Amino acid sequence: MVSGIEQSEPDVRDPSSNGTSESKPENYTSKLSADQTVNLDFGDPTLYEEYWKKMENKCDTVIPGSSSVSYFSDTKNFCWFLEPELETQIRKLHSIVGNAAIEGYHIVVGVGSSQLLSSALYALCPKDTPEPISVVSAVPYYSPYPALVDHLQSRLYKWAGDANTFNGEKPYIEIVCSPNNPDGLIKQAVVNKIGGKEIHDLAYYWPQYTAITAPADHDLMLFTASKLTGHAGSRIGWALVRDEKVAKQMVKYSEITSIGVSKDAQIRIAQILDFLSHTCSPDHPIESVFDFGLRRMTERWDRLRDAIFEANLSGVLRLPEFPENLCRHFKVQNRARPAFAWIECRADEIEDLESFLRAERVLTRNGKSFGSTAKHARVSMVGDDATFHRFIHKLSAININKQN
Amino acid sequence: MVSGIEQSEPDVRDPSSNGTSESKPENYTSKLSADQTVNLDFGDPTLYEEYWKKMENKCDTVIPGSSSVSYFSDTKNFCWFLEPELETQIRKLHSIVGNAAIEGYHIVVGVGSSQLLSSALYALCPKDTPEPISVVSAVPYYSPYPALVDHLQSRLYKWAGDANTFNGEKPYIEIVCSPNNPDGLIKQAVVNKIGGKEIHDLAYYWPQYTAITAPADHDLMLFTASKLTGHAGSRIGWALVRDEKVAKQMVKYSEITSIGVSKDAQIRIAQILDFLSHTCSPDHPIESVFDFGLRRMTERWDRLRDAIFEANLSGVLRLPEFPENLCRHFKVQNRARPAFAWIECRADEIEDLESFLRAERVLTRNGKSFGSTAKHARVSMVGDDATFHRFIHKLSAININKQN
Repeated sequence: MVSGIEQSEPDVRDPSSNGTSESKPENYTSKLSADQTVNLDFGDPTLYEEYWKKMENKCDTVIPGSSSVSYFSDTKNFCWFLEPELETQIRKLHSIVGNAAIEGYHIVVGVGSSQLLSSALYALCPKDTPEPISVVSAVPYYSPYPALVDHLQSRLYKWAGDANTFNGEKPYIEIVCSPNNPDGLIKQAVVNKIGGKEIHDLAYYWPQYTAITAPADHDLMLFTASKLTGHAGSRIGWALVRDEKVAKQMVKYSEITSIGVSKDAQIRIAQILDFLSHTCSPDHPIESVFDFGLRRMTERWDRLRDAIFEANLSGVLRLPEFPENLCRHFKVQNRARPAFAWIECRADEIEDLESFLRAERVLTRNGKSFGSTAKHARVSMVGDDATFHRFIHKLSAININKQN
Repeated sequence: MVSGIEQSEPDVRDPSSNGTSESKPENYTSKLSADQTVNLDFGDPTLYEEYWKKMENKCDTVIPGSSSVSYFSDTKNFCWFLEPELETQIRKLHSIVGNAAIEGYHIVVGVGSSQLLSSALYALCPKDTPEPISVVSAVPYYSPYPALVDHLQSRLYKWAGDANTFNGEKPYIEIVCSPNNPDGLIKQAVVNKIGGKEIHDLAYYWPQYTAITAPADHDLMLFTASKLTGHAGSRIGWALVRDEKVAKQMVKYSEITSIGVSKDAQIRIAQILDFLSHTCSPDHPIESVFDFGLRRMTERWDRLRDAIFEANLSGVLRLPEFPENLCRHFKVQNRARPAFAWIECRADEIEDLESFLRAERVLTRNGKSFGSTAKHARVSMVGDDATFHRFIHKLSAININKQN
């Protein structure tokens, strides 16, 4: 079993594997039979495949053979590898949804938001720092952050753990993920000291997951197509950056490390965002990806809560409670239905929830990976239907006492 | 004027700019008038646009809306983000061209070969090294290498300059670029000490640039679509890696830093490589990109040598001499016609060739950027026709003496 804190979102484990060395990997998309393992470890957003298949060829992208025969997308933009059409569509969608301020912001495109997080760290750190800048995030934090910060053992920055317990007096960078992965809660920076800088990871600040209450207007905000439309394999993320100098440093990082970002993927995501902007208007006859996501995520969260209740596990497996808020996009009061369920185990006899569930052939991510305790586990809510239903089925059959 | 060694292949300068702050940037693709600046600084392979336009819709790629709704490409492959069809096409093309051994090699896909160079450094360095591993390359080396190695000030590795003068007794990594950027010559490793490791950057080891004399069979070899078919904007490179452990570490690096590589771009490049494999067979009626590249690069090199001769500059501006070799692909003896002309200035009165040419409104890259002297300058040979013809025109009119 591969462990813990070093893994990024999809780790090298076979997602169809049951996590034991004896297992025979089975086809990822095969229909699971009753005794097969359910993998809810990572947040592969295959939930959205159903939606895009239903759209048939409405969102097919045709890329001519002569496209992308140049490194440059726009030589008038300091982010010379940003496709102008993608910039247009990003600004349009944020403006329609109202989830982020765009006036006065520069856009930097990245290979997903992962690359942009590295770009942002590079951009925010002075290059002549006597010691590495501390990078912190409040527990529970997104599990790949520590490895993303420390993998090259940079002299510019270093992972310094939980923002809640950070008490250094030197410059620092706080990563704020909101809604937070893993727990789905709306977060604010917690350190708030002079000399600090913040990176706001807003991958899930879209109306299918949480109420959009106001346009976010932090200095540096990261978004990604992965959890917005489900196109995780396209690897397109973007940053909204207030300070031009910071944005230019981020561009420099991408120049050095990857000479920009695939134009093919940018062109495609621009088309998909355009489709979303059109379909998400109230009078459009086609269900938008936001409508679809809201409907399906609500169903799943209801089923999960019901299954826990019906199995008499309400006192044992606790889910976060989310307040009601008015969503500016849907114009209704609603509660969050995050991409992950962050489950806390209240049973004294279970020390490690992930191990307990693994014995039941349900793979989750251990709370320790998020800087939290083994009493917690994270469960993906955005996988395919077959996997989710199997999970609910297994949950209904769990007998806490039989383990002891 | 942006200087030197930190810049990656396309730098942030506007490619249509004349390099002075007074310049008015003009449209990159606009027809240049007689007094405009010619930018040959970076190797944007727009030469190939003519070819792909001539192919009309033969190589259009259609990507369905439901494609790429998952991080995973192949959960049975440890390089889980490699599209199986891209792997197939990479192996097929190498096998047809005979430029690289493929049996016994693992393939790792990257965001261009730039990301793979970082992945390879990460993979080849022990993570508990007491001091950073020295990374060297023989002068003249590809100008972005130093920044690519040092930008994050890693404790794992550091740039240590010219491989020819490296005399450390500790482990090291030598980057060997062959045919070499900037000078187009075939290179071998020069350090050859125990404990050394090598990364072979073979971006230009394709038959339009040089004779393919044998399949390269180094432990770690990097290739890219950018200079093979011209699709630099797709950002697809690949590594052929003998040691599975090294390949797995490279995959881990990509997982951490970008969660893989755009599937959209991989699918497209797979189709383009398939087209190339078909068209490059001797009896195919369509001119292949190799045939096109050979024809056009030969024309350009002939024109460049003629222009220097006709302007009586043969004693002043010296180009490298290339030996004749039998090319296994074209089945003929031919001389290299590299993607760059590495020009040496023999005139005593000109200390800095790049500055001299800049005064003539010809932008090149200074030899100092490649660890060499200002007596050298690198000129792109793979840009668009208008730019190249303007360059030849300006060269014909150069008067060395008027500068003094």
